[in-house]
Amino acid sequence: MDFQHSSKAKEYQKRVQAFMEEHVYPNEKVFEDQLNAQETRWADVPPIIEKLKKRAKNEGLWNLFLPDHTYGAGLSNVEYAPLCELMGRSLIGPEVFNCNAPDTGNMELLYRYGSEIQKSQWLTPLLNGEIRSCFTMTEPDVASSDATNIEAHIEKDGDEYVLNGHKWWSSGAGDPRCKLAVFMGKSNPAAPRHEQQSMILVPMDTPGISVKRMLPVFGYDHAPHGHGEIVFDDVRVPAENMIWGEGKGFAIAQGRLGPGRIHHCMRLIGAAERALEDLCKRVQKRVAFHKPLADQGVVREWIADSRIELEQARLLTLSAASKMDQEGNKAAKAEIAMIKVTAPAVALTVIDRAIQAHGAAGISDDFTLAAQWANARTLRLADGPDEVHRRQIAKMELSKYKE
Amino acid sequence: MDFQHSSKAKEYQKRVQAFMEEHVYPNEKVFEDQLNAQETRWADVPPIIEKLKKRAKNEGLWNLFLPDHTYGAGLSNVEYAPLCELMGRSLIGPEVFNCNAPDTGNMELLYRYGSEIQKSQWLTPLLNGEIRSCFTMTEPDVASSDATNIEAHIEKDGDEYVLNGHKWWSSGAGDPRCKLAVFMGKSNPAAPRHEQQSMILVPMDTPGISVKRMLPVFGYDHAPHGHGEIVFDDVRVPAENMIWGEGKGFAIAQGRLGPGRIHHCMRLIGAAERALEDLCKRVQKRVAFHKPLADQGVVREWIADSRIELEQARLLTLSAASKMDQEGNKAAKAEIAMIKVTAPAVALTVIDRAIQAHGAAGISDDFTLAAQWANARTLRLADGPDEVHRRQIAKMELSKYKE
Amino acid sequence: MDFQHSSKAKEYQKRVQAFMEEHVYPNEKVFEDQLNAQETRWADVPPIIEKLKKRAKNEGLWNLFLPDHTYGAGLSNVEYAPLCELMGRSLIGPEVFNCNAPDTGNMELLYRYGSEIQKSQWLTPLLNGEIRSCFTMTEPDVASSDATNIEAHIEKDGDEYVLNGHKWWSSGAGDPRCKLAVFMGKSNPAAPRHEQQSMILVPMDTPGISVKRMLPVFGYDHAPHGHGEIVFDDVRVPAENMIWGEGKGFAIAQGRLGPGRIHHCMRLIGAAERALEDLCKRVQKRVAFHKPLADQGVVREWIADSRIELEQARLLTLSAASKMDQEGNKAAKAEIAMIKVTAPAVALTVIDRAIQAHGAAGISDDFTLAAQWANARTLRLADGPDEVHRRQIAKMELSKYKE
Amino acid sequence: MDFQHSSKAKEYQKRVQAFMEEHVYPNEKVFEDQLNAQETRWADVPPIIEKLKKRAKNEGLWNLFLPDHTYGAGLSNVEYAPLCELMGRSLIGPEVFNCNAPDTGNMELLYRYGSEIQKSQWLTPLLNGEIRSCFTMTEPDVASSDATNIEAHIEKDGDEYVLNGHKWWSSGAGDPRCKLAVFMGKSNPAAPRHEQQSMILVPMDTPGISVKRMLPVFGYDHAPHGHGEIVFDDVRVPAENMIWGEGKGFAIAQGRLGPGRIHHCMRLIGAAERALEDLCKRVQKRVAFHKPLADQGVVREWIADSRIELEQARLLTLSAASKMDQEGNKAAKAEIAMIKVTAPAVALTVIDRAIQAHGAAGISDDFTLAAQWANARTLRLADGPDEVHRRQIAKMELSKYKE
Repeated sequence: MDFQHSSKAKEYQKRVQAFMEEHVYPNEKVFEDQLNAQETRWADVPPIIEKLKKRAKNEGLWNLFLPDHTYGAGLSNVEYAPLCELMGRSLIGPEVFNCNAPDTGNMELLYRYGSEIQKSQWLTPLLNGEIRSCFTMTEPDVASSDATNIEAHIEKDGDEYVLNGHKWWSSGAGDPRCKLAVFMGKSNPAAPRHEQQSMILVPMDTPGISVKRMLPVFGYDHAPHGHGEIVFDDVRVPAENMIWGEGKGFAIAQGRLGPGRIHHCMRLIGAAERALEDLCKRVQKRVAFHKPLADQGVVREWIADSRIELEQARLLTLSAASKMDQEGNKAAKAEIAMIKVTAPAVALTVIDRAIQAHGAAGISDDFTLAAQWANARTLRLADGPDEVHRRQIAKMELSKYKE
Repeated sequence: MDFQHSSKAKEYQKRVQAFMEEHVYPNEKVFEDQLNAQETRWADVPPIIEKLKKRAKNEGLWNLFLPDHTYGAGLSNVEYAPLCELMGRSLIGPEVFNCNAPDTGNMELLYRYGSEIQKSQWLTPLLNGEIRSCFTMTEPDVASSDATNIEAHIEKDGDEYVLNGHKWWSSGAGDPRCKLAVFMGKSNPAAPRHEQQSMILVPMDTPGISVKRMLPVFGYDHAPHGHGEIVFDDVRVPAENMIWGEGKGFAIAQGRLGPGRIHHCMRLIGAAERALEDLCKRVQKRVAFHKPLADQGVVREWIADSRIELEQARLLTLSAASKMDQEGNKAAKAEIAMIKVTAPAVALTVIDRAIQAHGAAGISDDFTLAAQWANARTLRLADGPDEVHRRQIAKMELSKYKE
Repeated sequence: MDFQHSSKAKEYQKRVQAFMEEHVYPNEKVFEDQLNAQETRWADVPPIIEKLKKRAKNEGLWNLFLPDHTYGAGLSNVEYAPLCELMGRSLIGPEVFNCNAPDTGNMELLYRYGSEIQKSQWLTPLLNGEIRSCFTMTEPDVASSDATNIEAHIEKDGDEYVLNGHKWWSSGAGDPRCKLAVFMGKSNPAAPRHEQQSMILVPMDTPGISVKRMLPVFGYDHAPHGHGEIVFDDVRVPAENMIWGEGKGFAIAQGRLGPGRIHHCMRLIGAAERALEDLCKRVQKRVAFHKPLADQGVVREWIADSRIELEQARLLTLSAASKMDQEGNKAAKAEIAMIKVTAPAVALTVIDRAIQAHGAAGISDDFTLAAQWANARTLRLADGPDEVHRRQIAKMELSKYKE
Repeated sequence: MDFQHSSKAKEYQKRVQAFMEEHVYPNEKVFEDQLNAQETRWADVPPIIEKLKKRAKNEGLWNLFLPDHTYGAGLSNVEYAPLCELMGRSLIGPEVFNCNAPDTGNMELLYRYGSEIQKSQWLTPLLNGEIRSCFTMTEPDVASSDATNIEAHIEKDGDEYVLNGHKWWSSGAGDPRCKLAVFMGKSNPAAPRHEQQSMILVPMDTPGISVKRMLPVFGYDHAPHGHGEIVFDDVRVPAENMIWGEGKGFAIAQGRLGPGRIHHCMRLIGAAERALEDLCKRVQKRVAFHKPLADQGVVREWIADSRIELEQARLLTLSAASKMDQEGNKAAKAEIAMIKVTAPAVALTVIDRAIQAHGAAGISDDFTLAAQWANARTLRLADGPDEVHRRQIAKMELSKYKE
């Protein structure tokens, strides 16, 4: 295990940090204002986003998540971790560097499992930041935490596949630039349990796709990105849209979700670090009962515990990243599951303390605390609920001592 | 201490419960739909509210919070507790019975400290449910948890008072029916610390009042009620609008906040009970890995702990209510502080477990869980943050052993 | 539910409290010294115990646990609760009033299910405090939390029963005055699951009984009472020693354990109250970094939370006691399970805070904190582990919503 | 930061692990039996200890803690960490390798700050394992968590120093081989706050030293090592026994406690790892309600959370160790404070879960769980209570944002 950062990595850190400070934080409110000035919050993407993307791309701070030199920045997971953490400090940060979910996961999927034609058609514009995409796996009618429950199906009909299914929490589906859905469904119901599912590429403008509504998250709409409930009704796509091959859905999901999960964790640590910074500043300025809050009661305990919890969560993230780099995503299964449980929990705790320290301001939109909290809460469910990850960790642990 | 419920109280419980089931729960979505159908969510009050109010009033389920027989239902706090709990199960519940904050607090204040003229002008229409009111105490620029920090001031000028101040989190200020603000500010800065403040009645249409914005709570706008940021700029009101007398602000706040706090706790217990019910139903229906969630992992631990925590919180609420009934609000200071710390914490924990059991549905608006969570989170800050209540409890405890 | 204390109950409270202060606390160290002065700590019972018992008996503070007027003090569970709490403040308290486990449980068992002969032979001397007893149910070789696992067996042979089994955690077995074991084992293996077990009375001097060792609890030996590991090897007792009848073991256990469990909880609350008192005193006296500990960091949060948790645990205990009084032990099953989970948890938390506030003194025997902590920890296992009680509570809760 | 283990380190790990399995675990009970077979538990050191020490020394598994090649094994902190963790799995483990507290700390102190004469007189026999030592700093009469409170004094009288003071929790003072006390006291009360204290070497047989009693820890006596309460009454030692120089006590304490603290943490992680192993084995063997405990309720949640918490605590320990290796003990101040808070907390939680999974066996001495729990609890107080470490961490964090 080696967390030493190369000088290249350190250089990137400095640049991303500077970019965040100069261009991202000051534009968070601009983004929100532009959104509210639109006819509806879903009408368009606030122009500040494309402006910032262009700048980041020009500065070479682009596609930093992709370990391949040809397509992306060629950074290892350990190298990317602190950059992703920095981006995660702002809710508009990741997209600015073309490093936002679910597009990163979809790009990784196309990069790993896509055919050359699929790459040129979809990976290239995604890497260029020209289009956005969504991932349609979760379904309202079944416990999707058990992926074998999924009921959507994919049927071959001549040189086409016909897709039917009811999906929701398809994040990014609200974005007017969203042109592609990665669709997961059962294509081979008679095959062994983990070879029944496939993933297939579906252009968003294919007939039969209808976005029924955009789902709120604790009152946030997350416009214009959003989380869609989508019905696929006899949606037809060419057979060559199948990714990798029929029955590979599960294998792809495993490959796709590993990096996706750890990226979420990195961002959460960044969000929590910013919250701790906000907390420390606030309690030194704010006075009650004749003393700064920093000198009262439980406040320093909050700060100390936050620092300890964050330090440990970051180390576990790096440790998982390091194992992914050195032994592959599959070998790091346990570590990824562990950090997927811990990082949201730590972030929620730290951000909640910061909220409490801010008083009522903390639950409003005067700070990014409440929005970041809601986001972190989502991640105790997204990409597998805590319970499923714990289940896996326990299973691996118990198996060490099986008689 | 006596929690035995009289047959009168039990009768009320049955009726309120039936009303909730027949008229309130089924109309939660109607309320939301009517709100969204308006030009803006702030434009008007969804008609379903007035319709339900009328029905509840006709059935005599009205002003149940007010222990006085002439003005209200004449129920004790212990008798009111289970009713208030039932109402709290729905976010639209309390208003239907004219038992919603901050109007109840304001009515109680007028009932206790108002002059006859003030009563006839404001208490009567409030009790009739004809108008709504807000309470303007918290300020953005100071830690308002220490009420002596408050900077707003009230100056006598002839037979008028001139009010200046910057307030926020004035809940209910968004409601088009809101006609009255109870304003707190310093009138006598030279007086002893706890006699510097006054409370005064301000018609919302008085010149100089401007509502700058409505504050969101974890993304929720709480329209049309809402939480206002309000600037009072040389606002002039007749001298007879002063409540009780100059310098009585603190004393009134103490009297007003006691019942207000315990009402919040009762409602929170109701919200958490409903969440536990939702959880129990969900986990018996939802299947993952070939078993209902109810038969897996930590789910039954969640249920058992929720039941234990709720039972204790309810008992502590009743115990505080009983003390208020028998020895007065002031004597119950410790108990009120205790339940004000515990009830939101329990509610947050129980609701959060229910959210987790619902998967992504739990954070959306398909259930009331996420909205109730946000509401409960607010109550770790509103009417005094946890830290101030703990501070008081510890002080009382330590004083028992002072040498 | 009615927690109002009668004047009789209040009178008892005053007297027990005075007795504790005058006679029990000052003799805790005497007890320990007398024990250490013996040849071994198991050799005899420190004379101070019998001296204090005599005094308590003379004062009429005796057998307060037994609700029957003829045999005991005739107090209800609600009346007994505050007395039991007071006794529980000292580890030597309960026995002084002949209100200590497991003798109270065994006396209750004999009182409820014993024949007249069994009563005169065993109940009378137990009520007189002349002898002690133990209860042999738990076994080392099986998970005894599931009572159907129990492997000991009881076989009829003529007009005798022959007992075989390996038991442990038979508390009180070390006491030289222990003359009676209540033995639980399978007598009717072919009967329905809950009618296979019987309970039978076994004089401790019956041939075939061997106490293999006394088990320590976190380093404490609890001498001279102690916790025995006992082998029963072809132990023969007259057939009339059977309690109630063959196959009634389970039914008796349910009846016996209910009151036993709630008594433990009352004592734990007493222990925790004393710890909180110790804490409050210590932190006002002890100075670090130029300020009393009471004015630092998290200390007041500890105090406030302890007060809140204790208040709730006490209310839940009283609520369970009240239900037992009014509807019977069986009807209070859920409440007893709830308090059995909560009271040890609260006591452990509060005592642990007090330990931390005492620094290293807290883990030594200069205070009773460490010993009380160990005792409380035991009660997360004794009379059913937390997990079994939670399991039951969840089952009852889920059944409310079964479709 | 680099946690990569060299092949030398890995080789050591294999050898220490093998030694633990072959020689240490099987002799834990032998140790206890020999101790109990003595006239008193304090009479002598069980012969198994010296036998095991001899074997470990012969195998070159000796003084592994000392980073200097001449005196010790020359391992870095990062290299030593996994070895220390392995030793910590058994309470008799560390001494077998001459790596036990407080001797390691005292050896480190002599190695760093001792004169050549002091080294030859005391360091050599300590390194050889011929004698043992204790460290006398904590005092019963003051809050010793604030080291400036210490009241013991050291007065120059000719070419001697005269020592007076009342100390306790002098660990190791019970050992018949204990020949040396490191004494801390005020020598220069008029100097600046952190230059008032000195440390001085005191042979245990110096007149005026009296060990008043040995303090129990949660009922454990920790014989023959033990924790002494010691009175120093006009104890005279030659002036050359002063370590480093007058007024250097604080500086030495800082230097001594850093490595000592992290060693404790490493051992705690080992203890907790063994507890988790015990837990995993137990729950797969033990059956209740027709299923292994491993398949029930909350057990897998315990396992998963334990694995996650341990992984993070280990990483934080290694991160602190790495910083100590690369930037020195002082630079790692924050990291050491963090791990000193976290490691005991994690160990307590994990061991407690294992206890619960073992039922009553867990609180007895049939497993090492209860004893290890008590030991871990001690470490929330020893070498600075949690609160003092949190205080420091918060101070450092707040200072980043000071205006």
